[in-house]
Amino acid sequence: MSHNSFGHLFRVTTWGESHGPAIGAVVDGCPPGIALQESDLQPFLDARRPGGSRYVTQRQELDHVRILSGTFVDAAILAEFGGPVTTGAPIALQIENIDQRSKDYAEIADRYRPGHADYTYDVKYGVRDYRGGGRSSARETAMRVAAGAIARQVLGPRVQIRAALVQMGPHGVDRGNWDWAETTRNPFWAPDPAIVPVWERHLEERRLAGSSTGAVIEVVAEGVPAGLGAPLYGKLDADIAAALMGINAVKGVEIGAGFAAAAMAGEDAADEMRAGPAGPVFLANHNGGVLGGISTGQPIVARLAVKPTSSILTPRRSIDATGAEVDIRTKGRHDPCVGIRAAPVAEAMLACVLADHWLRALAQNGQGWAENIGG
Amino acid sequence: MSHNSFGHLFRVTTWGESHGPAIGAVVDGCPPGIALQESDLQPFLDARRPGGSRYVTQRQELDHVRILSGTFVDAAILAEFGGPVTTGAPIALQIENIDQRSKDYAEIADRYRPGHADYTYDVKYGVRDYRGGGRSSARETAMRVAAGAIARQVLGPRVQIRAALVQMGPHGVDRGNWDWAETTRNPFWAPDPAIVPVWERHLEERRLAGSSTGAVIEVVAEGVPAGLGAPLYGKLDADIAAALMGINAVKGVEIGAGFAAAAMAGEDAADEMRAGPAGPVFLANHNGGVLGGISTGQPIVARLAVKPTSSILTPRRSIDATGAEVDIRTKGRHDPCVGIRAAPVAEAMLACVLADHWLRALAQNGQGWAENIGG
Amino acid sequence: MSHNSFGHLFRVTTWGESHGPAIGAVVDGCPPGIALQESDLQPFLDARRPGGSRYVTQRQELDHVRILSGTFVDAAILAEFGGPVTTGAPIALQIENIDQRSKDYAEIADRYRPGHADYTYDVKYGVRDYRGGGRSSARETAMRVAAGAIARQVLGPRVQIRAALVQMGPHGVDRGNWDWAETTRNPFWAPDPAIVPVWERHLEERRLAGSSTGAVIEVVAEGVPAGLGAPLYGKLDADIAAALMGINAVKGVEIGAGFAAAAMAGEDAADEMRAGPAGPVFLANHNGGVLGGISTGQPIVARLAVKPTSSILTPRRSIDATGAEVDIRTKGRHDPCVGIRAAPVAEAMLACVLADHWLRALAQNGQGWAENIGG
Amino acid sequence: MSHNSFGHLFRVTTWGESHGPAIGAVVDGCPPGIALQESDLQPFLDARRPGGSRYVTQRQELDHVRILSGTFVDAAILAEFGGPVTTGAPIALQIENIDQRSKDYAEIADRYRPGHADYTYDVKYGVRDYRGGGRSSARETAMRVAAGAIARQVLGPRVQIRAALVQMGPHGVDRGNWDWAETTRNPFWAPDPAIVPVWERHLEERRLAGSSTGAVIEVVAEGVPAGLGAPLYGKLDADIAAALMGINAVKGVEIGAGFAAAAMAGEDAADEMRAGPAGPVFLANHNGGVLGGISTGQPIVARLAVKPTSSILTPRRSIDATGAEVDIRTKGRHDPCVGIRAAPVAEAMLACVLADHWLRALAQNGQGWAENIGG
Repeated sequence: MSHNSFGHLFRVTTWGESHGPAIGAVVDGCPPGIALQESDLQPFLDARRPGGSRYVTQRQELDHVRILSGTFVDAAILAEFGGPVTTGAPIALQIENIDQRSKDYAEIADRYRPGHADYTYDVKYGVRDYRGGGRSSARETAMRVAAGAIARQVLGPRVQIRAALVQMGPHGVDRGNWDWAETTRNPFWAPDPAIVPVWERHLEERRLAGSSTGAVIEVVAEGVPAGLGAPLYGKLDADIAAALMGINAVKGVEIGAGFAAAAMAGEDAADEMRAGPAGPVFLANHNGGVLGGISTGQPIVARLAVKPTSSILTPRRSIDATGAEVDIRTKGRHDPCVGIRAAPVAEAMLACVLADHWLRALAQNGQGWAENIGG
Repeated sequence: MSHNSFGHLFRVTTWGESHGPAIGAVVDGCPPGIALQESDLQPFLDARRPGGSRYVTQRQELDHVRILSGTFVDAAILAEFGGPVTTGAPIALQIENIDQRSKDYAEIADRYRPGHADYTYDVKYGVRDYRGGGRSSARETAMRVAAGAIARQVLGPRVQIRAALVQMGPHGVDRGNWDWAETTRNPFWAPDPAIVPVWERHLEERRLAGSSTGAVIEVVAEGVPAGLGAPLYGKLDADIAAALMGINAVKGVEIGAGFAAAAMAGEDAADEMRAGPAGPVFLANHNGGVLGGISTGQPIVARLAVKPTSSILTPRRSIDATGAEVDIRTKGRHDPCVGIRAAPVAEAMLACVLADHWLRALAQNGQGWAENIGG
Repeated sequence: MSHNSFGHLFRVTTWGESHGPAIGAVVDGCPPGIALQESDLQPFLDARRPGGSRYVTQRQELDHVRILSGTFVDAAILAEFGGPVTTGAPIALQIENIDQRSKDYAEIADRYRPGHADYTYDVKYGVRDYRGGGRSSARETAMRVAAGAIARQVLGPRVQIRAALVQMGPHGVDRGNWDWAETTRNPFWAPDPAIVPVWERHLEERRLAGSSTGAVIEVVAEGVPAGLGAPLYGKLDADIAAALMGINAVKGVEIGAGFAAAAMAGEDAADEMRAGPAGPVFLANHNGGVLGGISTGQPIVARLAVKPTSSILTPRRSIDATGAEVDIRTKGRHDPCVGIRAAPVAEAMLACVLADHWLRALAQNGQGWAENIGG
Repeated sequence: MSHNSFGHLFRVTTWGESHGPAIGAVVDGCPPGIALQESDLQPFLDARRPGGSRYVTQRQELDHVRILSGTFVDAAILAEFGGPVTTGAPIALQIENIDQRSKDYAEIADRYRPGHADYTYDVKYGVRDYRGGGRSSARETAMRVAAGAIARQVLGPRVQIRAALVQMGPHGVDRGNWDWAETTRNPFWAPDPAIVPVWERHLEERRLAGSSTGAVIEVVAEGVPAGLGAPLYGKLDADIAAALMGINAVKGVEIGAGFAAAAMAGEDAADEMRAGPAGPVFLANHNGGVLGGISTGQPIVARLAVKPTSSILTPRRSIDATGAEVDIRTKGRHDPCVGIRAAPVAEAMLACVLADHWLRALAQNGQGWAENIGG
C-alpha cells in the first residue's frame, strides 16, 4: 500500500512539493522494448500549460521533463527504434522547480484557506509545507501527465484518448457542434466553437470579480479492446472513478449516461447489440464502454466535475492554527478555472488506468483473450 | 493485487457465485478485542432484503450469515464482552445458497443480455457461469453488507452511516422534508414521506410495462474524525468513488455539491470556517466532508446513480455466442428498481472505506493524530 | 496488504483456526479455462498425512477439501475437459474440522509454551484462541497444500515440483543414493533408502525420550522456464525464501549452493555455460536455477531447515499470562518430527510462488518473452 | 504490486542504473514529525564504502545523497527539532552518478558472464543496459542504505541494528572473542580481531589468483519490542528472509539457530522463559527473537550467506547472445569479496523490515499493543 502511488502493474509513484527543488515520478512495470524518449512526453506537458493564455496561472516553469532511468539505447536499438527503448526497469521522471516565489505564501503559513487542504493537513500530519500548496499543489499533476504519456506508448496507437470541456460554470456545450479538432484551437479544450466566446466572457467576469468558476470535462478513449477490467473489485469503471476523483478539485465522476441513467427506462439504458462484420455492434453507448466492470470495445466515456478553485481574491472567513478567527484572501498566481488544466490530467489518468488494466488482462487472461480481441 | 478484494488494511475478499453451494468473504486486518458475533451482522443483511415488499426480487434466501473464524470466546471474554471478540485473525463469513433455480437461466447460456456483463465475460474469460449471473450476481453484495457490519464495529458507535434514496426515475425527494427516521418506515429508504406514493406509482407503472427504473442514493457518515485519507492517491473521496462505482449498475458518484459544483462561484463553493467551542465549525459542506482528500470532521456526503436494471421483460435486440442476432427478454425473478437494494450496500461500502482509512491513519499518523482528534 | 494472503497475481488467502468449524482458502487470479476439480487437490492433501504412520500426529481428520466457487461445468465443457474448469473467479476451498478435542488444550490457556507463539500472540493481540494452536496450528498448511495443487494446474505438466528430506536430526542422506522414486516408498520422503532405518531409530529414540527432532528438506522444481522473477524486489529467490521461511518452524532457507557458497572460490561458484541444441547448457547449478533474481531454466533448488517441534513431553520452564513462573509440558497429539509434514507444504509453497511469477512475467514481458522461452 | 519496491506501509521504491545520470529512491509512508536531514543518511552511505580500503571496488563515487522532498523546516520547526522534519509526504532520495567508465563494459554487451544476470535479463526483457551491471549493479544498494537510515529514524534510538562478518571463505570468527566495537576498527566488519589477519591473507590470495571469495554476515537488532510480525503471511522472519535473500549474491538466510536447529533436540531448541523484573526473560535465543512469526522482545538475529562474486579475472566458459561459445573474463573494477559491502546493506534491509512492521502493528494492534510493550 502506498499513499503516493497508483496503478497495480503499471504503477506510478510521484513525489515532490511545489517549492522543493524538483518534482518527480517513478513508473514501474512498463514492458520492455517500447520506444520512449523525452520528446514523447514533452508535448503533453506543454499542452497542460497553454503558454500565452491569460486563463491559466502565470507561473512560468520550463517544465522540462527528464528521463533518468529505465531506457537504453545502443547502435542496434537506435537502428531499429530510432531512439531509446524501455528496458523493463523503473522509469524515473523529473522536473526541476525553477520559478518559485516562496514569500508569496508566508502569510498563509498559519491560516487555513477555506476549501483548501490546509486544515486537514494540519490535523492529520501536524506539520505542513505551506509554500505553494506543498504536496497538494496542482503542480504534481505534471507528473501524472508525463506518466500518462508513457501509458499511451504502452497502449500503442490503436488507443486514442482525448478530453474536452463540456461545461464551464453554468454554460454547457452544444453536442450537435462537437468537433474534436476544435479542442486544440482554443485555450479551453472546447469541442464546440460556438461556446468559446461565452466562456471567455464568463471567465473574465469571474476573474474581475475576484472569483472563480467550475467545469465539467469529458474524457473519451477509443480503440480500447473488450475485456479490460474485472467483475467486482478492480472494475474498470471503479478504477476510472478513483483515478478521476483523485484529481485536485474534482467532486463528481460519471460513466456513460451517468446520473442521467437514474431517470431512464430499462429498455433505453441497455445498449442493444447487432452482428457486425468485425464482431458485435452496439446500438448505443449509455454504459460508456463498460459492462459489469469490463470494457465492451465501445469508446470509454467518462465525465468529471471540477469545483471552482478556492484560491480567490474575495475575502473569506476562516480560522488560523491557534483557532482564532481570521479573514483570508488568496494572493499569488492562480487560475480562475482550474478545470481547464484538468483536461490533460484527466486524459493522463485514463491512459494510466487503461495501461494498468491492459497488463492485468495479459496476466490473467493471456493468450486466449489476446486471440479473442484479435490483438 | 486481487480482483476480488477491496481495502488495504481492513481488507475484504469475497467469493462465490449465485448458484454455487455458498457465497463468502474473508475480512482481514480487523483489530483484535472487538466484540463480534453473527447477531451483529444479521440485521444489516435482513435490511438488504425487506421481506414482504413486492418491489424487490422474490428469491427467498434465508441469508443466514455464519462466522467461521477469527473470533473467540471463553469464560473471561464472555464476562467482559458478553460474547466473542475478534482475535486479529481473518474473519471468514459464509452464507449457504439454498433457493436456486438454475433451470431459469438455461436459455441465456449462449445469449448476451443487453446491458449485462454476459458478452464482456465471454470475451475476457472464454467461459462463464451463466446461472443467475454467476459471479456478477447482485447476491455477492450480501457479503459487502456483512463486511460493512464488521467495519461498523471497528469504527465504533461514534460513527453513524446511513443511506437514503433521493431520486427514483425522474422523481426526486423534497429535501425540506428530510427525516432520517422515515427511511426505515417505507420500503424505499425514502427520507421524505411525501415521495413514497409517487415512487409506488412510478414503480408499478414500470413493472407493468415490463420495464425498470433507476435511482440516486445519498449516503452519509457522521462522526468521522478529521484526518482520514491522503493528499494524492488514497484520497478518501477517490476511494469512496471507487467503492461506490464498484456497486452493480452504478454509473455515477459525487461528493458534497458534486456535479452542481461546476456551476458555482468560488466564494460559494469554499466552505468557510469559524471557531467553535470544540474546534472549527464549518459554515457549509459543499465539499462533502473531504478537503484535499482528507476528512474534515464534517459529515461525509456522497451520492451514487444506479441505472435501471437491464433484466426486463421487454424483448431487446442482441446477439448470441456464435454472433447470430437474437431477440432476448429476461425471465426469472428480478427487481424493477435495483437501486433500492443498493442503499444498504452503499452504507456498507462507505463503512469499509472508513474502517480501512481509520487503520491507515493509525499506522502513519499514530499518536499525534489520535491526540489531535481527541480520540 | 494482508497478513493472511500470499502471492500477488496468483493470490492465496487462508482463514480458520484448528478448532473452529472449518478452515479455508480463497485462491484469486487463477486464469480461466483450466481443468480443476476436487480430485486434483485431494491426493496432495492425502500425501500430507501419510495415514498409518506413527511418526505424524494421530489426529484423524478426513481432510476432504471442497471447491465452493470459481469453477463451472456444463455439457460443452464436460465434453472438452472431462470436468469443471476455472472461470477466472475466485476459487474458495474449505475443509471441515471434525476431530477436535478442545479439552486437551484447556491447561495451556494461560501458560506460554516455550518455543511456541503463545506469548507473542498475547503481547500482540491481547486475546488468543489457544485451542490446538488456533490460527498458528500446522493444520493451516492443509490450505497451502490445496492451493499448491491449483498452482500446479496453472503451471501445467511441463513443471515438476518435488521435495525430499535430506537430513533428520544430525543424519543426512547420501546424495550418491538419490532416487526420487524412493520418496514415495517410505514415510519420511527420504530419497536415499539407506537412511530410512537410521531415521526410524533416531525418531523412535526421540519419541521415547519425550523429545523431538528437526529436519532439512530439499525442494526442486524442474521444467521452469527462464525469465521468472525480477532483478531487485520480487526476486524469484527472495520470494521463495519468504514462502519457505513462512512455513511453521522453519529457521533457515538456502538456494543452490546456499551457505556452502560462502566458502567457494569465484571460479567454482559461477555456473559456466555452453551452447546446447536447444539453448544454453549450464555446466553446474550452484545458483539453484536463479541468477540475478530471475530463473535460468535450470532446476530451481532450495532447502529449508525445520526446527524440532517445541511440543514435547519433557517439562520446560516458562511463565503464565500473569507473569508467574510455571513448568509446562505439552500433552495432546503431536509429531516428533514436524519436518516430515513440511515436505509437501514446501512443494506447495514453491508451486504457488512459481505460478505467481508465471502470471507476473506474462503481464510485463508478454509475447516477446513467451516466444523466447518457446512457450 | 511493484518489482522495484519493498515494504508495505514503510515502502521503498528504487530506480536507476549504474551508468545512468543518477540513482534514486522514494520512501513512502514515513510518519510525519520525525527529524530528518541529509546528514542523518550520509554516515551510513560512507560506511558502505570504506574509503582507502583496497578490498572494495575502486570506483570513487562521492555518493552524496540529496533529499528532494518530504521534509520541511521553518523557524518554529528549527527551534524545536534543530532542522527539517518529515511531513508524511514521500521522501525522494537521489545520488548523482559521476565516475562512470562505460567503455569498460563494451565487450560484454553481447556476452553472458557466468554467474551474472546477463543471460536471464536477455531472456526476460530482450533488452539490457549492460553498462556496469545496469539495474542489477550493486550500486543500487546505496539506496537501500539510505532508506535504511530513514527507517532507523522511524524506529528511534531504542532499536539498535548492527552487522558483522562471521565468516569469510572457509574462515569463521571465534564467537568467544566477539566485540561489536571491533567491527568499526577493521575494513571487514569483523567482530573478532584475531580473524582480521587471517582474512587479509585469504583475500589477498584470492585477489592475486584472479578469484574471489564469499562471506557470511550476521545482523542483529536489539531493542525491538515484542509483537512485530504476523502469524502466517507477513511473518517477521519470512519478511526478513526475503529482504536479506534479495541482496545481490545472497544464497542463504537463517534466523536464530538456523540450519543448526535441524540437528537439535526439542528441549534444547525451545527457549525457556522465566519471570524478570520487566517482563519475561528468555534463557536462550535459538529462535532468533521470533516465535510464530512475531517478535519476542529478544534480539533479532539473522545470518546471510554471500557467494563469491562472479566478476573474476579467471577466464570462464560461456556463450554470447547469438548462442556462440566464448571465453569471458571480467575486466573493470570489482570487489574480491562483495560480502564485505553487504554488511551495511543487511543492516539497512533489516531496519526497513522493522520500520514497516512497526507501522503495521500500529495499524492493527494500536493502543492496546502500545500499552503492552510499554511504548
